[in-house]
Amino acid sequence: MAGTGVFAEIIDEEVFKYYSEGEWMKSSSGKSVAIINPTTRKTQYKVQACTKEEVNKVMGNAKGAQKEWAKTPLWKRAELLHKAAAILKEHKDPIAECLVKEIAKPAKDAISEVVRSGDLVSYCAEEGVRILGEGKFLTADSFPGHERNKYCLVSKIPLGVVLAIPPFNYPVNLAVSKIAPALIAGNSLVLKPPTQGAVACLHMVHCFHLAGFPKGLIGCITGKGSEIGDFLTMHPGVKCISFTGGDTGIAISKKAGMIPLQMELGGKDACIVLEDADLDQVAPNIVKGGFSYSGQRCTAVKVVLVMDCIADALVEKMKASIAKLTVGPPEDDCDITPVVTESSANYIEELVVDARKKGATFCQEYRRESNLIWPLLLDNVRPDMRIAWEEPFGPVLPVIRINSVEEGIHHCNASNFGLQGCVFTKDIDKAILISDAMETGTVQINSAPARGPDHFPFQGLRDSGIGSQGITNSINMMTKVKSTVINLPTPSYTMG
Amino acid sequence: MAGTGVFAEIIDEEVFKYYSEGEWMKSSSGKSVAIINPTTRKTQYKVQACTKEEVNKVMGNAKGAQKEWAKTPLWKRAELLHKAAAILKEHKDPIAECLVKEIAKPAKDAISEVVRSGDLVSYCAEEGVRILGEGKFLTADSFPGHERNKYCLVSKIPLGVVLAIPPFNYPVNLAVSKIAPALIAGNSLVLKPPTQGAVACLHMVHCFHLAGFPKGLIGCITGKGSEIGDFLTMHPGVKCISFTGGDTGIAISKKAGMIPLQMELGGKDACIVLEDADLDQVAPNIVKGGFSYSGQRCTAVKVVLVMDCIADALVEKMKASIAKLTVGPPEDDCDITPVVTESSANYIEELVVDARKKGATFCQEYRRESNLIWPLLLDNVRPDMRIAWEEPFGPVLPVIRINSVEEGIHHCNASNFGLQGCVFTKDIDKAILISDAMETGTVQINSAPARGPDHFPFQGLRDSGIGSQGITNSINMMTKVKSTVINLPTPSYTMG
Amino acid sequence: MAGTGVFAEIIDEEVFKYYSEGEWMKSSSGKSVAIINPTTRKTQYKVQACTKEEVNKVMGNAKGAQKEWAKTPLWKRAELLHKAAAILKEHKDPIAECLVKEIAKPAKDAISEVVRSGDLVSYCAEEGVRILGEGKFLTADSFPGHERNKYCLVSKIPLGVVLAIPPFNYPVNLAVSKIAPALIAGNSLVLKPPTQGAVACLHMVHCFHLAGFPKGLIGCITGKGSEIGDFLTMHPGVKCISFTGGDTGIAISKKAGMIPLQMELGGKDACIVLEDADLDQVAPNIVKGGFSYSGQRCTAVKVVLVMDCIADALVEKMKASIAKLTVGPPEDDCDITPVVTESSANYIEELVVDARKKGATFCQEYRRESNLIWPLLLDNVRPDMRIAWEEPFGPVLPVIRINSVEEGIHHCNASNFGLQGCVFTKDIDKAILISDAMETGTVQINSAPARGPDHFPFQGLRDSGIGSQGITNSINMMTKVKSTVINLPTPSYTMG
Amino acid sequence: MAGTGVFAEIIDEEVFKYYSEGEWMKSSSGKSVAIINPTTRKTQYKVQACTKEEVNKVMGNAKGAQKEWAKTPLWKRAELLHKAAAILKEHKDPIAECLVKEIAKPAKDAISEVVRSGDLVSYCAEEGVRILGEGKFLTADSFPGHERNKYCLVSKIPLGVVLAIPPFNYPVNLAVSKIAPALIAGNSLVLKPPTQGAVACLHMVHCFHLAGFPKGLIGCITGKGSEIGDFLTMHPGVKCISFTGGDTGIAISKKAGMIPLQMELGGKDACIVLEDADLDQVAPNIVKGGFSYSGQRCTAVKVVLVMDCIADALVEKMKASIAKLTVGPPEDDCDITPVVTESSANYIEELVVDARKKGATFCQEYRRESNLIWPLLLDNVRPDMRIAWEEPFGPVLPVIRINSVEEGIHHCNASNFGLQGCVFTKDIDKAILISDAMETGTVQINSAPARGPDHFPFQGLRDSGIGSQGITNSINMMTKVKSTVINLPTPSYTMG
Repeated sequence: MAGTGVFAEIIDEEVFKYYSEGEWMKSSSGKSVAIINPTTRKTQYKVQACTKEEVNKVMGNAKGAQKEWAKTPLWKRAELLHKAAAILKEHKDPIAECLVKEIAKPAKDAISEVVRSGDLVSYCAEEGVRILGEGKFLTADSFPGHERNKYCLVSKIPLGVVLAIPPFNYPVNLAVSKIAPALIAGNSLVLKPPTQGAVACLHMVHCFHLAGFPKGLIGCITGKGSEIGDFLTMHPGVKCISFTGGDTGIAISKKAGMIPLQMELGGKDACIVLEDADLDQVAPNIVKGGFSYSGQRCTAVKVVLVMDCIADALVEKMKASIAKLTVGPPEDDCDITPVVTESSANYIEELVVDARKKGATFCQEYRRESNLIWPLLLDNVRPDMRIAWEEPFGPVLPVIRINSVEEGIHHCNASNFGLQGCVFTKDIDKAILISDAMETGTVQINSAPARGPDHFPFQGLRDSGIGSQGITNSINMMTKVKSTVINLPTPSYTMG
Repeated sequence: MAGTGVFAEIIDEEVFKYYSEGEWMKSSSGKSVAIINPTTRKTQYKVQACTKEEVNKVMGNAKGAQKEWAKTPLWKRAELLHKAAAILKEHKDPIAECLVKEIAKPAKDAISEVVRSGDLVSYCAEEGVRILGEGKFLTADSFPGHERNKYCLVSKIPLGVVLAIPPFNYPVNLAVSKIAPALIAGNSLVLKPPTQGAVACLHMVHCFHLAGFPKGLIGCITGKGSEIGDFLTMHPGVKCISFTGGDTGIAISKKAGMIPLQMELGGKDACIVLEDADLDQVAPNIVKGGFSYSGQRCTAVKVVLVMDCIADALVEKMKASIAKLTVGPPEDDCDITPVVTESSANYIEELVVDARKKGATFCQEYRRESNLIWPLLLDNVRPDMRIAWEEPFGPVLPVIRINSVEEGIHHCNASNFGLQGCVFTKDIDKAILISDAMETGTVQINSAPARGPDHFPFQGLRDSGIGSQGITNSINMMTKVKSTVINLPTPSYTMG
Repeated sequence: MAGTGVFAEIIDEEVFKYYSEGEWMKSSSGKSVAIINPTTRKTQYKVQACTKEEVNKVMGNAKGAQKEWAKTPLWKRAELLHKAAAILKEHKDPIAECLVKEIAKPAKDAISEVVRSGDLVSYCAEEGVRILGEGKFLTADSFPGHERNKYCLVSKIPLGVVLAIPPFNYPVNLAVSKIAPALIAGNSLVLKPPTQGAVACLHMVHCFHLAGFPKGLIGCITGKGSEIGDFLTMHPGVKCISFTGGDTGIAISKKAGMIPLQMELGGKDACIVLEDADLDQVAPNIVKGGFSYSGQRCTAVKVVLVMDCIADALVEKMKASIAKLTVGPPEDDCDITPVVTESSANYIEELVVDARKKGATFCQEYRRESNLIWPLLLDNVRPDMRIAWEEPFGPVLPVIRINSVEEGIHHCNASNFGLQGCVFTKDIDKAILISDAMETGTVQINSAPARGPDHFPFQGLRDSGIGSQGITNSINMMTKVKSTVINLPTPSYTMG
Repeated sequence: MAGTGVFAEIIDEEVFKYYSEGEWMKSSSGKSVAIINPTTRKTQYKVQACTKEEVNKVMGNAKGAQKEWAKTPLWKRAELLHKAAAILKEHKDPIAECLVKEIAKPAKDAISEVVRSGDLVSYCAEEGVRILGEGKFLTADSFPGHERNKYCLVSKIPLGVVLAIPPFNYPVNLAVSKIAPALIAGNSLVLKPPTQGAVACLHMVHCFHLAGFPKGLIGCITGKGSEIGDFLTMHPGVKCISFTGGDTGIAISKKAGMIPLQMELGGKDACIVLEDADLDQVAPNIVKGGFSYSGQRCTAVKVVLVMDCIADALVEKMKASIAKLTVGPPEDDCDITPVVTESSANYIEELVVDARKKGATFCQEYRRESNLIWPLLLDNVRPDMRIAWEEPFGPVLPVIRINSVEEGIHHCNASNFGLQGCVFTKDIDKAILISDAMETGTVQINSAPARGPDHFPFQGLRDSGIGSQGITNSINMMTKVKSTVINLPTPSYTMG
């Protein structure tokens, strides 16, 4: 159970501690932040409200610890990460429990998130051993006018302190997808968990603690974003920010200094369905893509663009699929669970009301109880409705009927977002020409958008972010280049 | 005109000279080899019949020149290759003329071959500058138990003397596709041209001569394969053989010593046509793939495997396409020209006779005049006919009707050859699953097999060869690895 | 001569035009900006003072032209760049003349800059053909739990409009080092030249115009930074900024939105000289490194850290080398020419005065005439002097005597800057251990810092910048990642 | 103990079984091969003398099992290899015992070999997941004249059945360095262990068996090389040979067909010592390099080329180091143990006698008891002595005094062998210029030759072999290329 067993030391009475200098600590603020269970709407957990001084302390330690960590053999870094991964998987149950209680994630999915996170950490460790251990060896005589008298050794080296800010929906997985690449690359890491999901994050951090990473290398700060958010992101000790979340990311980008940014922000992933698609396969795929974890996924299908001639058939089949979704508490493994906050539920409702007003067809009755919203398919959505463009982050999916492929591509490309998109067609030429034309970071041919497998590149265009993620790209992003040039007195050519 | 102008110095009276020590020379043998024009069946040109002593001389020079060449800056090597490419393109007319007369290549195609060869040389030069100028820089601490106290610099270095043996059908293009990677990589090069095409090769070599490569770096030996073939391929000075041709390649492989081999041998490229393919597009594509240069291409379509239900329709459309092919002398740019030798024509006829005997359907009347064979489509070919498995290397194309995709794949994979294959279908899933299942070096989806573009990898499985070609792969193949390990007294970590 | 011949169309009466929509235009502002010749201190040229509307127009055109350009085959893009490079080299004389008059660059160096720029453009074209033409092909089954049923094709695609802002000291070379990678990668390009050097830039841009790039793809805006600087760098149409210059870069970073930044800012390149160095070789090398182009190079040696025991000897030899430097106008190819502006000369003098006050030893008499400052070596500089840390960007070089290697490394790493550094020693172990310990983007062993050869990575740490340059890295930096995932109905394994 | 516990099933009475179809079997030959303990000179173990029919069976099974294995997800292949590695390390003691008894390897070194082998298998698994899971994605428009209408997906695929033939000196390590890359790449594997070391190999194979690899995927044949050697290496089912050993490799190369060969044959690694080297560090390093495992290592120092002026000093220090070597049975962890066979000891003695006759200076008395030869340093060796060129593979090390670096390089390059070499000097320029000039696969600067760390490339030039090893290179070598080209009806450019 959360906060017990090996995790007993991360809680003090009722308030979970923060992590600094390799220890679990109480904030000198004496204040805490309450975490509301989306299902019960009651306070489930409390975390420390850290102060700016405590942030400074964590940053300072991280900076100091990083220099030594950068001098640790790659295989030793990997060994510690493998250990952390094993501990994480071993303790999947209490961590998953936090996910159920903090973010109403269905119980099985919560377990999966933790297990997949362990796999990610291990994969990342091995990937980093290779990326960091191999540089380039360049010679001068490639460039006109030069002899072979300069040998350039190009290394990848750490950035320093990486600030990781994961979102509420995958607080563990999207935390470790920042932590593991940062660490294997020789960086230190300061984690600012989301409010919902903070306790799961603290448990996860404890697994790294138990693995025996050097003191100070990892820090975890909790508190109100409004109080310490800007202080953290604009902190001069921060040498890289990896953020997943919403528009806040754009604001962070504008304030951050001259440091590498990895931002994964919102999405409005469009799904284009052509006449020749196999609707029996497509309908459940879209429904899964749109309603998994109640639509609270950046890569959820967020708008369906279907050729008019098959729209009726597709909608009918989707309705059938939706009818099979179970609705209720996450503890029961329901497909649809309460959305994360009341304000989120209210926002979703706003979009639904707007769509109703403007004439969208409701394929199901709109139903909401507190944070729990029943799955809803909106047909005949038109571009003048907000839901055609905005991201509900809830179990509501708009269908726009199109008369040409071009219309679908145009809608996709007109969005501020450019995370993923997908196209369903059996035709190889159309599949490729359309995916080339869709201006999103990834296009899925014949499947709903998906982040994983985690070694695939993952990136958003336009307001959906900057930088490419995926294990390999994240590691690379968290390094910088250093060159050493050996200048020889005479040209030398390697003979053999 | 061939042998005139800047090329006057490569001919002595009626016999073309060979190239050694940077000069054009007459063989001390006093003998020559006659080159028969496939169209006229008369001696068109004569080349020197070199002696073993002359081979030794060329080899010795090549070995000596290579060491100095390996000490030439990459950009200078590239500069010379660019110069050779420009000279080659400038003199495309006389070289193309040789191709017309020696191998009956249609005039326009002959020009294309020379121009494309120039492009290849230039592309290869720039590619090599990059491949040779960049090595790896590895550190020891990736491997368990090691500190970062060993820095390994990995270079690619030349092999030494490369022996290039191109075939008759693209004597210029398939020569430069061996010469250019060999040279940019710092090797020296000995060329043994095919008998038919030898004079085109000599002209091409002269373009390299005019570009100003160092003396002895390039040698070109002519003569009878039966006399100097084994002597050349088993010569201890040869450090790499790049051969394109037929079964001789397998024999060479078995005799050659411990040196890298690049072999591109025969092919029996199958073309699988599914029910959903667009036959109006497929039929002319296959006809072009099967009958270009009278089928004398390793990547010609050599057997069509068509689903029975659409076979009649496809055959009908192919017949229509074939009817448009012009037949006659290469000087008139006919599609179908005389095949390269009488023995080749006889072999083709053997296969045709065998097929007739075993009941194949002749879509056209079989017609032959001397070396000229009219294009012939054989329908209802069955696995017991020789033409189902053997490579006619002529304008004869068998069609086998299949009842399942598996049957098609099985026929493809049962062949000794595994060069290329192709599948025509609109269905993206079938296209990929079938191409994955076809065990050939390359599978073309929705187009006939093709060697180019020349930077794509190109390779044959089973008896079709060893090693991967294409510009990048050929350069890599013509290098070897050398490592330099700097051992430090203490571990050192690159900081920044 | 500048502004004549083919360049006649870029000038209107006395004011050079700006470049928009593929044409040379006069600003509607009716205003111009004067460019003062550093040698004569008189107005040499005038350029347009563009308006914000004109900036908007250029941006709009660039955005539009980019989409079409991104659909141009790579080899065609390269062909245009090769053409531009050839035109640039052909017209090296008038462009070099601008460099002499605008920035007082010695005449021969001015010619070199233009020629080297042409080489860079060509090299970049070929590099880009390869970088853009090759992506990754990933399969799902690498990651635990996945079958091989997802094929991920990873492409590099253009960013959109790239804003290039080169500095005064290499206005042509550091412009093309941004323009060429931007263009080959499929981006459009807006250039904001420095005031000094603007006219050289305009000439250079005209060479691209003459090469025939599509209308609107390239734009060049002149004007006062104070009026249009922020407007340009914060323009929503800008999708990437590549800037070389001073602290302005940090300010730009803080204001820029969520776009990739390539910043190369100041440097204080330290040169550590050990006891075993060959001083006869080192002294002239440092003098060249410190005083070339009067020290106005980001990679100039900016502080010498020499072991005390050999300091006298080194200083003596450096004095002898300095004595050979010629001082005077750039037209006479003098080594030391007037610095770029009066305010620059004043700043240099400030540092000299401060050093004198605090007790530095003057190895030569301090001498200044207008913008012309005679070369000056300051010995016995101590950390409390400003010149120990600040960048004079002029012909003044401080020497700090150190008692240990650690002291030298510490001084190097304590700097805000981290561009390059160098170490002179014969000892292989010391050379590598020290270069690993120096926290700068590049460390040169046994030679003064240098940007080139241009295909080597080039980057600054800390306040010296962000992102790595060098041809390959710049091209990569000016692209983003897009993935296409083909989802198969069943796992498929590629057989052969 | 060997052949007990989990290993009980691999022995039948006194004869160890061979491995076929996933089972341990007795040969139908009824014959066995005796393995003589080099220390006791008595039969220690017996293994099956397999028949040609049994070879055929193993080959047939391997061919069949490979096709299915190639369809196994990469992570599952890796999982099995990790399991085998763990089992191997768990059972290090009985396997090491075999090494002690079969090849007289000192006990501690025997343990190290097994542990290091486990690490290698794991590292290889992870490396292969990455190499096999990532191909290239090429587009046609890089090459002049082409539009972007062909997408080429380049995969690495298995070769088929790999035949692995390790040598006696590292029978476990050099077996797994072939087995692990073969398996992770999707190949099946037939192992032919050396006679001495066969039983250690059989134990190691059993660890793979226990890990649960598919039946038939791995086979292990024992028997007399004279009876089944050629049959195995020329077997048509073999698609790759990876051999480590002596001259036999050259013979195999000449007989093998058109298949990739990885040959690591002999070495005569030269060690050049310059005047400025730190002899206190160099002497023990060379002695370790020359006498570890009694000099029975391909990368042992096999000739010292020392500048005459320091030769006396070096020899003196080496003598002191040699005096510390312990001599005796491997069970006692002696440094010098009996050489592997009597014929080996006789050959070593031949070289010693020849050197004595021709005037070499004996730094120690020559002493031999049965297979045990005391360590011997021969000074003043000259090029006319056999030991200057031949490989004793025993504890005898010749010193040649040289008067110039060039003389040393010349001796190194004149050898038939070209495995590794080393140079001892503090001077960075000399270190690099000399290592560039030494024509060997690897040059070690300031340390004796070494194969590891195992991810470094490892290769021999000339008669020392073909192909590059090291984990990454071995995996690549055991794959071939397959391309899939998607041909589009119109050009398509990936937009974003």
